[in-house]
Amino acid sequence: MVNVGIVGGTGYTGIELLRLIAAHPHLHIAEITSRGEAGRRVDEIFPGLRGVTDLVFQEPDPVRLSRCDVVLFATPNGIAMQSTRELLDAGCKVIDLGADFRLRDASRWQQWYGMEHACPDLLAEAVYGLAELNRAAIAEAKLVANPGCYPTAVALGLLPLLESQQFDLGHIVADCKSGVSGAGRALKLQTLFCEANESFKAYGASGHRHLPEIEQVLGDALGGCVDISFVPHLVPMTRGMQATLHVPVDGSLEQFHALYAQRYADEPFVDLMDSGEHPETRWVAGSNRSLVALHQSASRRDRLVILAVIDNLTKGASGQAIQNLNLMFGFKEETGLVSAECSA
Amino acid sequence: MVNVGIVGGTGYTGIELLRLIAAHPHLHIAEITSRGEAGRRVDEIFPGLRGVTDLVFQEPDPVRLSRCDVVLFATPNGIAMQSTRELLDAGCKVIDLGADFRLRDASRWQQWYGMEHACPDLLAEAVYGLAELNRAAIAEAKLVANPGCYPTAVALGLLPLLESQQFDLGHIVADCKSGVSGAGRALKLQTLFCEANESFKAYGASGHRHLPEIEQVLGDALGGCVDISFVPHLVPMTRGMQATLHVPVDGSLEQFHALYAQRYADEPFVDLMDSGEHPETRWVAGSNRSLVALHQSASRRDRLVILAVIDNLTKGASGQAIQNLNLMFGFKEETGLVSAECSA
Amino acid sequence: MVNVGIVGGTGYTGIELLRLIAAHPHLHIAEITSRGEAGRRVDEIFPGLRGVTDLVFQEPDPVRLSRCDVVLFATPNGIAMQSTRELLDAGCKVIDLGADFRLRDASRWQQWYGMEHACPDLLAEAVYGLAELNRAAIAEAKLVANPGCYPTAVALGLLPLLESQQFDLGHIVADCKSGVSGAGRALKLQTLFCEANESFKAYGASGHRHLPEIEQVLGDALGGCVDISFVPHLVPMTRGMQATLHVPVDGSLEQFHALYAQRYADEPFVDLMDSGEHPETRWVAGSNRSLVALHQSASRRDRLVILAVIDNLTKGASGQAIQNLNLMFGFKEETGLVSAECSA
Amino acid sequence: MVNVGIVGGTGYTGIELLRLIAAHPHLHIAEITSRGEAGRRVDEIFPGLRGVTDLVFQEPDPVRLSRCDVVLFATPNGIAMQSTRELLDAGCKVIDLGADFRLRDASRWQQWYGMEHACPDLLAEAVYGLAELNRAAIAEAKLVANPGCYPTAVALGLLPLLESQQFDLGHIVADCKSGVSGAGRALKLQTLFCEANESFKAYGASGHRHLPEIEQVLGDALGGCVDISFVPHLVPMTRGMQATLHVPVDGSLEQFHALYAQRYADEPFVDLMDSGEHPETRWVAGSNRSLVALHQSASRRDRLVILAVIDNLTKGASGQAIQNLNLMFGFKEETGLVSAECSA
Repeated sequence: MVNVGIVGGTGYTGIELLRLIAAHPHLHIAEITSRGEAGRRVDEIFPGLRGVTDLVFQEPDPVRLSRCDVVLFATPNGIAMQSTRELLDAGCKVIDLGADFRLRDASRWQQWYGMEHACPDLLAEAVYGLAELNRAAIAEAKLVANPGCYPTAVALGLLPLLESQQFDLGHIVADCKSGVSGAGRALKLQTLFCEANESFKAYGASGHRHLPEIEQVLGDALGGCVDISFVPHLVPMTRGMQATLHVPVDGSLEQFHALYAQRYADEPFVDLMDSGEHPETRWVAGSNRSLVALHQSASRRDRLVILAVIDNLTKGASGQAIQNLNLMFGFKEETGLVSAECSA
Repeated sequence: MVNVGIVGGTGYTGIELLRLIAAHPHLHIAEITSRGEAGRRVDEIFPGLRGVTDLVFQEPDPVRLSRCDVVLFATPNGIAMQSTRELLDAGCKVIDLGADFRLRDASRWQQWYGMEHACPDLLAEAVYGLAELNRAAIAEAKLVANPGCYPTAVALGLLPLLESQQFDLGHIVADCKSGVSGAGRALKLQTLFCEANESFKAYGASGHRHLPEIEQVLGDALGGCVDISFVPHLVPMTRGMQATLHVPVDGSLEQFHALYAQRYADEPFVDLMDSGEHPETRWVAGSNRSLVALHQSASRRDRLVILAVIDNLTKGASGQAIQNLNLMFGFKEETGLVSAECSA
Repeated sequence: MVNVGIVGGTGYTGIELLRLIAAHPHLHIAEITSRGEAGRRVDEIFPGLRGVTDLVFQEPDPVRLSRCDVVLFATPNGIAMQSTRELLDAGCKVIDLGADFRLRDASRWQQWYGMEHACPDLLAEAVYGLAELNRAAIAEAKLVANPGCYPTAVALGLLPLLESQQFDLGHIVADCKSGVSGAGRALKLQTLFCEANESFKAYGASGHRHLPEIEQVLGDALGGCVDISFVPHLVPMTRGMQATLHVPVDGSLEQFHALYAQRYADEPFVDLMDSGEHPETRWVAGSNRSLVALHQSASRRDRLVILAVIDNLTKGASGQAIQNLNLMFGFKEETGLVSAECSA
Repeated sequence: MVNVGIVGGTGYTGIELLRLIAAHPHLHIAEITSRGEAGRRVDEIFPGLRGVTDLVFQEPDPVRLSRCDVVLFATPNGIAMQSTRELLDAGCKVIDLGADFRLRDASRWQQWYGMEHACPDLLAEAVYGLAELNRAAIAEAKLVANPGCYPTAVALGLLPLLESQQFDLGHIVADCKSGVSGAGRALKLQTLFCEANESFKAYGASGHRHLPEIEQVLGDALGGCVDISFVPHLVPMTRGMQATLHVPVDGSLEQFHALYAQRYADEPFVDLMDSGEHPETRWVAGSNRSLVALHQSASRRDRLVILAVIDNLTKGASGQAIQNLNLMFGFKEETGLVSAECSA
């Protein structure tokens, strides 16, 4: 059994980690911390876990955490970087579900996140945890930067096109939509039920932190710069995310479909639908899978529309973290993640 | 492996059966039928099952069905009774998720369901599949009448009180609420999104088919007649059910809590919360568990309020059917049903 | 024009007052206060009012408020009582949408609201603002206690039965359900979208502050004590409220229907549906109307089920306040309140 | 009073017409037809209109309809064109809320709508009812083609940019999102509550009927061809629509804002927000207003993001029809449409 420590277990990614680890045959939660809820039972805060766990939230304690085999940070940005070096030095592996290690360029990070980075030298060491792009490196990594939800959906929609390097891609538009859980469990007026229910809106349309991350991961796949716009939106539902990718690129739909089918043939968590299909976010609720489908207008061959859906809390956060953990510890990548997760 | 046949697999209880059976170690779906969708892949209708199943819907064929070890009917009322005898004669076990075998009294059945019963003689043979009441009989049964969702929630809320036979119970009010999936997947105006969303209503307030079933199961538990009113309501959510039970009964809250705690100590799927807690339906989404909690006003000891929540599609239908199947085939009752089902 | 002051305009009842007053021909908002938002435009906080208002939130100022003809308190409990006497002395009329003046018995108030009452002597002077019960007194009142949402729905469902004094009523069960806006616009974990969405729960099942108010108003109608239980529930929708009233009473449905039809024939805001109908909360969204319907089982004449729905923010709060204001200033009771408010 | 006939009053645009006309001082509904509901009271089908109307649905009768001053078709595509000529010949004005007269090119219409056009010669006579573009022509028109919801939102977002003809616009992406009422009130599996709730999806991504209409109206504004992609999506909410418009165009945000501010200064139903604001669909629920806001990344001046929100049933259908009717009959354009429509 791998001993897992979870720092910051009271948010939506924290409870999703608990749900997934409970179904994992090789993981044991040795430590779960919360400053705000220390001393309270986990299933008192999350009664959906009654009967599943006897864990009690602890005050974060570096010594106890450092005894774990791996520590998962499900914390706000800026927390993980405070103690990652210490944990790595103690022989722990670290997966940060926050943004602290996602950008290799410390100055860009500081510009977008508005604070100084506590350990910029670790940025080069951190592996960006998109298994579909960096599988081998993740398996060797001590420190994994778990991707953001939007970058995950956007990258899975574009990887085959970028990696093939056969196409002249114009300016890509990534018009993305997320369920409300993406905004977290902190108390904010705009995530009150009566403020978010029965309404739709864009946010961050002039600039969102996930843009530099999207540019970096797409650039890695292409081996060059990708020109992309990104606008996120809030959908009145709890879970789910869609990236609608508008790509100016010449070619036949059959050609693109074949490219995607070949690229994703062996990917356990990317499910290419028939071209012309419309994936729905509910079809991956609670699942680590992504559904991808391609569209092209019958009358014009110069543009491709790519639809990619994920569960923002699973493939977009905690499920992807477990996928990375599986790779880091030599388990089969799907371990604990493949089950019938569909809902009515 | 037990070979399972599913008749009528395209409704919400049908897909819930598929989801649960996919996670069950000893069940194999040998046959799944649908008149309307025969020839189409199951995961074409329910893309949430992509990667989970290769099944194809078949026209119902009595011969092929009779080769199964057990046949589950997830059909409208009045269908299962047409072929149950034939299947039993062929050595199949049968679980009807519909209402055909729930009432022992054929004339009451005919009065409430508005059609003649095709095999009233089988009513005496059918076992009412509430494991918490009829566990031993279910284990021996060839034919199980899977309970309705409302009767399940109401019965789990009242069993300890009724079985103890120590209390003089006055007229009980069962004020019940269900998510929209309880109304099924047939095309009806009142279950359109724009008709059910952002609204709440009672239905069947002058009389609902689940009333005679509630009276029968409660009467069985008490060993006598129970005087009860029942009003169901529709809640704008997909899954979930709550029974709020208003019971005129004298005693202390501690006394009642102790009674419930003792009665439910070994029930794998009934989870008694501390008195004064308020269960939420989301805490059992996709789970076969029921949460039960007791309330009493500090100022009066003559009334008890019991809150019981279930997932109407799981414990209220398909999960309970698998629980019954486990008993009928000698598996541990929880097999395939206990996993972390919580959602954010 | 009547000059209206609104204290505490940033909650859901505050914005509903603004919406209704904007459509009222004889009201002018002279003052709107908010400690938290002083200096900001109202339509900056509530962009749905863009083009409707140029108001700016002010710090509460007793002198400016006292120049209004009437002050409406849309504040948390315990605020209105701090300045009501001063306003009354200055010749202002006062309508409190909070609970400060709803209970005539100061000790009961203190017991349920957990604070000392600042002006218990005003309790006798305050008129309980249920026009359907106290129309004449409201017209003469200087100080109106606007009823709570649950007491309004419960009272409208029971008034004819109680006032007739012909019936021996047993213990009444008031099983009530509210949309989430009833919980207010303050930041609370349980009203976050992801906590309230897709779930249903009871709350306050062991005792809720609206119980003594319900007992008082029903007692006033009956001229005696009413024995009643009350359990409120939270429904995943923004607006709407239903009271399902289970009443042990002998009589024919026709008799009860005739009683209700006669009693409510001239009530502008109570709409009696045919017996056997099921009102839906969406039918009164944004409207000051209440829909009431009676049900009785065909097989038993000893129990009546009464369904009463309102919009918790309109008839349950701000609409009723305007109805009271109309009476207090001699306007036709429906002024500004009757329009086509239905939604799709 | 203008005598109005409504053909097909049982869908969501039909009831929205009824709601709006009830608040209009100069309109009288002389006739409302429905084949399916003939003989039933309107408020029996739409109880939200109880107390507002005594109308009874009639079988469509050409003679009675032709006595109206204006006939509004709230019918499926292909119905209005069957009787429009007859009505015009009788001196009636006609507003079609369907698509029959929206495309001037009959062959394109036939290609997208899959049926022969019954009166292609009327297409030249019909005026496209976007008042913000064709105000004068609408005032003179006998036959108005009321715009589709998506074309309305897209056009209001782009008009100033197109009309100025100063900019070299590259390929525009119109990524649009609609509430479920846009799919109508017909019984369809995909609009059942449990199919649409808690999910998000694109539809028509390979080609949607509103594309040729969008191309036509934008081309009219530009006086040339506009290169645009259009992908619609379904949002789990009843009402509301957003167009997110991604436009490759050089210039400063201030320059574009000034252009929009000047263009829309006198438009009663277009409300330009400050640049950088994010409109929410709930802010125009039930309102005929559109909210428009501009965004530009601080780091690049070659792209503009335009957000335009409307209520799909009001400005996107029935409200716009009343706006057109007001123009056609010489009423002030806002008559009956400007009121406080915001919701909590």
